Parts: sequence; C-alpha cells; structure tokens
Amino acid sequence: MQASKHSVVRGAHLSSRTTISTAFRSRCAPRRPSIAQGRRVVSTHAMFGLKKSSLAFLTVAKNTPHPEKVAKGGEDAWFIRVDAKGGGAFGVADGVGGYDEFGVDSGLFSKRLMQLAAEKEQTQSSSPDPKGIMEYAHRQTILPGACTACIVQLQGSKMYAANLGDSGFIVIRNGDKALATEPLQHFFDCPYQLNNSDTAPTDNAEDATMIEMELQEGDIIVAGSDGLFDNVFQDDIISIATSTIADSLKAGKSPLEANEAVAEELAALAYQHSQDLKYPSPYAIECNKDEAAMKQAQTEKLKQGGIFGKALGGVMNAVQTPTVVGGKLDDITVLVSTVVAPGSNKAALEGAAAAAAAGLEPVMAQLASGMRILQEKETKSATPIITRKKLVRSGQAKIEGAGITVADIENMDKATIQKMLMKYDLPTSGSMQKLKDRLAKAIS
Amino acid sequence: MQASKHSVVRGAHLSSRTTISTAFRSRCAPRRPSIAQGRRVVSTHAMFGLKKSSLAFLTVAKNTPHPEKVAKGGEDAWFIRVDAKGGGAFGVADGVGGYDEFGVDSGLFSKRLMQLAAEKEQTQSSSPDPKGIMEYAHRQTILPGACTACIVQLQGSKMYAANLGDSGFIVIRNGDKALATEPLQHFFDCPYQLNNSDTAPTDNAEDATMIEMELQEGDIIVAGSDGLFDNVFQDDIISIATSTIADSLKAGKSPLEANEAVAEELAALAYQHSQDLKYPSPYAIECNKDEAAMKQAQTEKLKQGGIFGKALGGVMNAVQTPTVVGGKLDDITVLVSTVVAPGSNKAALEGAAAAAAAGLEPVMAQLASGMRILQEKETKSATPIITRKKLVRSGQAKIEGAGITVADIENMDKATIQKMLMKYDLPTSGSMQKLKDRLAKAIS
Repeated sequence: MQASKHSVVRGAHLSSRTTISTAFRSRCAPRRPSIAQGRRVVSTHAMFGLKKSSLAFLTVAKNTPHPEKVAKGGEDAWFIRVDAKGGGAFGVADGVGGYDEFGVDSGLFSKRLMQLAAEKEQTQSSSPDPKGIMEYAHRQTILPGACTACIVQLQGSKMYAANLGDSGFIVIRNGDKALATEPLQHFFDCPYQLNNSDTAPTDNAEDATMIEMELQEGDIIVAGSDGLFDNVFQDDIISIATSTIADSLKAGKSPLEANEAVAEELAALAYQHSQDLKYPSPYAIECNKDEAAMKQAQTEKLKQGGIFGKALGGVMNAVQTPTVVGGKLDDITVLVSTVVAPGSNKAALEGAAAAAAAGLEPVMAQLASGMRILQEKETKSATPIITRKKLVRSGQAKIEGAGITVADIENMDKATIQKMLMKYDLPTSGSMQKLKDRLAKAIS
Repeated sequence: MQASKHSVVRGAHLSSRTTISTAFRSRCAPRRPSIAQGRRVVSTHAMFGLKKSSLAFLTVAKNTPHPEKVAKGGEDAWFIRVDAKGGGAFGVADGVGGYDEFGVDSGLFSKRLMQLAAEKEQTQSSSPDPKGIMEYAHRQTILPGACTACIVQLQGSKMYAANLGDSGFIVIRNGDKALATEPLQHFFDCPYQLNNSDTAPTDNAEDATMIEMELQEGDIIVAGSDGLFDNVFQDDIISIATSTIADSLKAGKSPLEANEAVAEELAALAYQHSQDLKYPSPYAIECNKDEAAMKQAQTEKLKQGGIFGKALGGVMNAVQTPTVVGGKLDDITVLVSTVVAPGSNKAALEGAAAAAAAGLEPVMAQLASGMRILQEKETKSATPIITRKKLVRSGQAKIEGAGITVADIENMDKATIQKMLMKYDLPTSGSMQKLKDRLAKAIS
C-alpha cells in the first residue's frame, strides 16, 4: 500500500513513530469503500465507529456570588433542563453591574430572564430555537436592568446555541477545544447585553452569535459567566475538566459526581484567582491590551500636535505603562455538561435533574423576594417601577471628565467625543463638527 | 454619580487609572436612557455609535501549494465573491491527501466543489444558506475524492458560516479574537470531510458547524486550510493581521493592498514554519498530545495485565516520550477579508473582485486540465471513472499491522479492534465479542 503524501511527510518529521501508528495516523482515506453499495450510505459515520444517536446533556451548576453581593444572590442566573429520555438545555445570564448607579439590581433581571427562558424552552414543541427563546425571554422580562445571555439546547446529537455578551461556553472533545465562544463587547468591559428596550437602547437576540454543532458522546461543555472566563484561562478550564472527570470516574464516582467535582473545582479556582491581586488573569491581560491601545492612541494624537506634542509623545512612549495584574472580583457561575447516551445514564440524568431543581430553589426564592420588594415600592410610588418606564438616575448626575475646555475638544477623536456625549445623555450621531459643537455647548 | 460595583473593584485593582478612564471603562450601564421614547429603539446600537448597516467583504487570497504538489496546484481550493454593492462570500476546501493511495487527486475534488459552491452562492436568491450551498456542491461533485469545506457569506451586517473539517477561520475585532473555528476530526489527523458518497462513507453538510454572527466595520476575517492553522498559532495570526493592516494603511497603501500584505505575510510564515524541522508548531503540539494520550492508554492497558504488565507499564511511564517538533508540509491557503462599508470602498472592492477572478484563473485551468485527463482515461476504460463508482485500491492492499495473533486481539480495546477491522474493510459495529471474532477470522 502506497503511503499517502501526508504520512510520508509526517514520517520524515516524526521519525519515532512505528509503522502501524503511522498508518493509523495518516490523513484518512476512505478505508471501507466496499461498504457503500447504494447511492448514499445510511450511517454516515460508520467508517469512524461514530454512529449518530440521540444524546443527553448531564448538566450541573455551581454559583459563587460576588463577595459583596452574597445577600441578594449575586447578579448571575442560570437554568438547567436535564431529560433522562435525551436532549436537554441550559442557560446562563450575567446581570449588568452598571445598573447599580440607577438603584437597579440587574440580578433580578437576569434571574427573571433565565426563568422565562427555562419556561419557554420546556414548552417549545418545535425544533430547537435558542434565539427564539432568548427573544421571548428578553421581551417578557418587564423589569429595569440588563444582562448577557447564553442559551444551549441539544436535540438528537446536535447542539444549538445562542450567545450574546461575555458569558459563553467551551466544547471540549478528547481533551481539546472543539469550539469556544469569545466575549463580545461594544468596548472594553461593556458586553453585548439585553436591556429593557423601553428604558435603554439594547442589543437583541438578533445580535446573538448562533452556533449549531454535531456533538459526540464524551464531549464536555463548560459554560459560565465572565466571572469564570475572566479568572481562569480556557486552556486551564479544558485540562481541569478533562482530567477531573477522568480521575473522578476512575475513583469510582458517578458521572453526576464527576461533573460536580469539575464545577466545584473551576468555581473554587475562579474565586481564588478573583481574590488574588497578583494573578495575571485573562482579565488583567485584556486590561493591559486595552491600556496599551489607549496609550498608543493618545501618543499618536500628541505627535500630531506640533513640536511640543511630538516631544511629549516621545516621553509617553518611553514611560513604562504599569502592568495590570490580579483577578476580577465578580459573580462566578460554572455549568458543566457532559454529553452522554441517555439509555445507560438514566440514574445519573435523573439525579442531575433533581440536583438542578434543588440548586435553583434559592435563586427562585431570591427572585420572588426581589420582585415582592419592587412591587411594594411600586404600590407606594406614583410612577410605575416594574412596568416599562424610563429610568431616572439616583441623584443629580455629576459628569466625570467635566472641566474640559472647548480647546480640549478640538484635540479629541470622534470616539472620545461620542463617549463624552453619552455622559451628557446627548445623541452621538452626526458629522464630526456637529459632535464637537454639541459637546462644546454641553460643557459651557 | 455612584460608581458601579464593578468599577469600584476594578479601581482597587487598577490603581493607576485616572478618574475619567475608570468612568469610561466601568461596566456599562444605559448611558442614554432619555433617547428611548417609544416602545422599541430603532437603531439598537446607537448607544455605542455602532449603527447596523450593510457591510461588504473585501477579500484576497494567497495559495502556496505543497512543494511536491506544485505542478497540479496542490489540493487546496477556494472561491471569493466580492460585491461593490455590499455583502460577499468566500470559501476554502482542502482535498484529503489519503486518496493518493487510490491514485485519486483530491485536488480536483476540492476545486470542483469550490467551483460549484461559488456558482450556487452567486445564483442563490434567497437568504444566505452556507449549509445548503455546501450540500449542493457536495452532491454535485461527481468525482472520486474528498475534501474539507468552509463557506462564509455576508448579508447586511451578519456573517453566515458553515465549516466542516479542519479548514476554518478567525474573526478578529479590535485586535482580539471575536470567534474562531477549531479543527474537527474523527481521530488525530482525520478531519471531518465530504467524500463522494457513492464511493465511500462520508460526512455531510448536515455535520458542519454553523455560525451566525453580527459583524462590524473593521473586523478582519482570516480563513484558511490547515496548512495555515497547523503552522501558525491563532495568536500570531491575530497580531500579524491586525498590525500589518494598520501599518499598511498608515504607509499609504490601499485597503486592498493592506489585505494582500497580510495574506502574503501569513502564507510566507506558514511556509517557513512548514519547512522548519525545529519549529514547535501547533501541529507538533497536537502530535505530542496525541502521542501522550496513546502512550497513557497503552500503559493503562499493560497495567491491567498482571505483575509483568504492571512492571512494563511502569517502565513505559518512566521512558521519556520524544517531543515532536517541526512544522507540517502542506498546501497553504490564506484568505484575508476585511469588513468594510461598501459606499466608501467602491474602488477597493472592484479591485478585489478583479484580483480574485485573476487569482482563480490558474486554479480553474488546473481543474479543467485534470477533468480532461480523467475523461480521456474514462474513454479508454470499460468502467466509469468520473461518474459515481466504487474505488479500487491500486494494487493488492497489504494490511499494515498484520502479523497480530488471536491472543493479541484479546488485549486490544474496542477502538483498536475497530481500526484494525477498517483496514480489512470489515464492518466495525456489533458487540465487543463479535468484533473480536470478526478480526480473528480476518487475520487467520
């Protein structure tokens, strides 16, 4: 048998391989041409021993609230549907902390949105439609606030996912990354988010990144809020999930216990890093990138400002930007889902369903309590709070960065002017001159 | 204004920040609540100055064939549609080299499949449907062979992609990864692939990973075959693409020239690494992972084999596995696509359309020539070659790894037995005992 070019080349590079392993590993050709008798082979994966079949999500969750937000249960939320007959779904949402300044708890928004998503997901009779579920839950969450959202469904052997913002997931196959979402944000630390569309501009389910992917038995999906991904590197998540599941099963633990061990370990590590002022976390790295980009933009701007500006730009360039280190204090939510054959994992799936329901009880209690408080406020208030309404900042807004002069505006780039205009609640569209005039008027 | 919890915490960690930058960077709240007058804000991104609009792909390609496959143009193929009015599409396909042993040039398969995909994509009047295009092109490629496939379309501001196998793409936004496909394979070095379904079992468009994602002006998409991704790390691709485009534009080059500079640079780097026997390439790292996993599996197996096995397992564990280094010789295809506003980039888009057509001319000539040779063979042959038919191995297949005994089979795990069965063109389904019996019969 003539070896393929691929294996010849690889043989040269990888001289330690035996003949049999080279043959196994040569870029694969059709090894069983004789089985294809008809027009189309029925089981498309027979060649690889990977017959497609109905699979199930065996999912567990672990949530560790931000230390200062423990009482209200933090601002993350999630849902899990485990079905012993196959399929399954889960979601995670991260309330936008910036709403604090309006006296709004985004944790209620995220919890309500996940509750609605779970209800819709469960009753949806048609094909998987995570975008439709997100759209429904977003529209029906009649509360002030905002959150990111990630919704994942399984039907047959296919995963359907919608992700908006900086929550997300990693699909791990044979110890490797098979797919991962990346955080999407409008600018640094401002993720895509679902806002109450009557109180603020919002991203929508339509803006979500959609993923459809064939899964295989043994795949591990780790989903979470940015409290996980900003504090633990993807590579570490992948190796911890893979090894902890293997070790747990080897030690005689059940598949459910194995997943719980991963969730506990990842949440604990994320929490530890989040408290560590020295850990060079994924978040710190992003901060430094952003810092460097901003510094460069400032330097470029200065260099265009004549001899003095050029000199100052040179000085800025020479100054060492302090390197940011440390984790990020945040709510941490970790969902660990293994892809299993439902038949042989009935007990584990039933156990996971019960555990998921128990785990969500306190979250639902927090949601109910928060809603009750809002309703009481509403009864006493002349204006509606829960129903759609414009938000009012608590107290007179003091614009930070004020004190700039009209001359300063001349030296600003468009993005900076637009950001300043946002602070004054002014429109940000129009020509550069229009924006400058608008900002000049606002500061005078 | 009360700072959000997020910014307070970050302030503590990032003490070097000025007030204004902290304010800019605090996790964003609805900064312009007053603009939402109606039930739904029309321009959902107004808040961030990112109004959704029709965008266009400004795409260029660079292909460097495998040094031993230059004459036939290698086994990679691609297509590009650039439209000055907006939108656009591109695709890349990598012929499976393993078909060499059947005397089949998978380069014809990949070129024909991309040609059909381009035709279908251009005439498709409805919504983007990369999976449908892949399905059509797969079904209509009436040739022996196989390839991976990646098809990406843009409509409005949304990208629609289907990816099957280990070609793929990275979406780069503001110097960061916004999304990346990961290679999907059945086992090491055996990617998901579209085979002629009459001559071999095949994966199908249905198995492709589907991605839908909102794009923004300034996004960079780098797509390619594994000749790129196995030789250049994702992080390097991201930083090279980002900096080369910025530097090129700054140096007064056109957007088209900037993209060409990126494609040239990435292809040259991939080629350089592919020739470098010392470079610790992404491919070498995957080889080592696979090697380690295989060694561990063997060790575990040995340890179960009594005292002698345990001792041997211990010895194997102690032996240092030689670390594989070096790049991977392969066809290299790099597509660089920037997301631009069509209005202000009419000239660049028209230039790119012309360049894409010119670049594909030799590929189409190679396809035509290859098809002509096949047709001539067919005329002289009693059996059809181009039309669907079962493949015949060139010469009597010598099964590598033969010489095993029935006792050996007893110690094999299921996957190993299945792989051996594949070599004998035997079915791989059934109980463990059935598989063992089948293999025992085959070797005797």
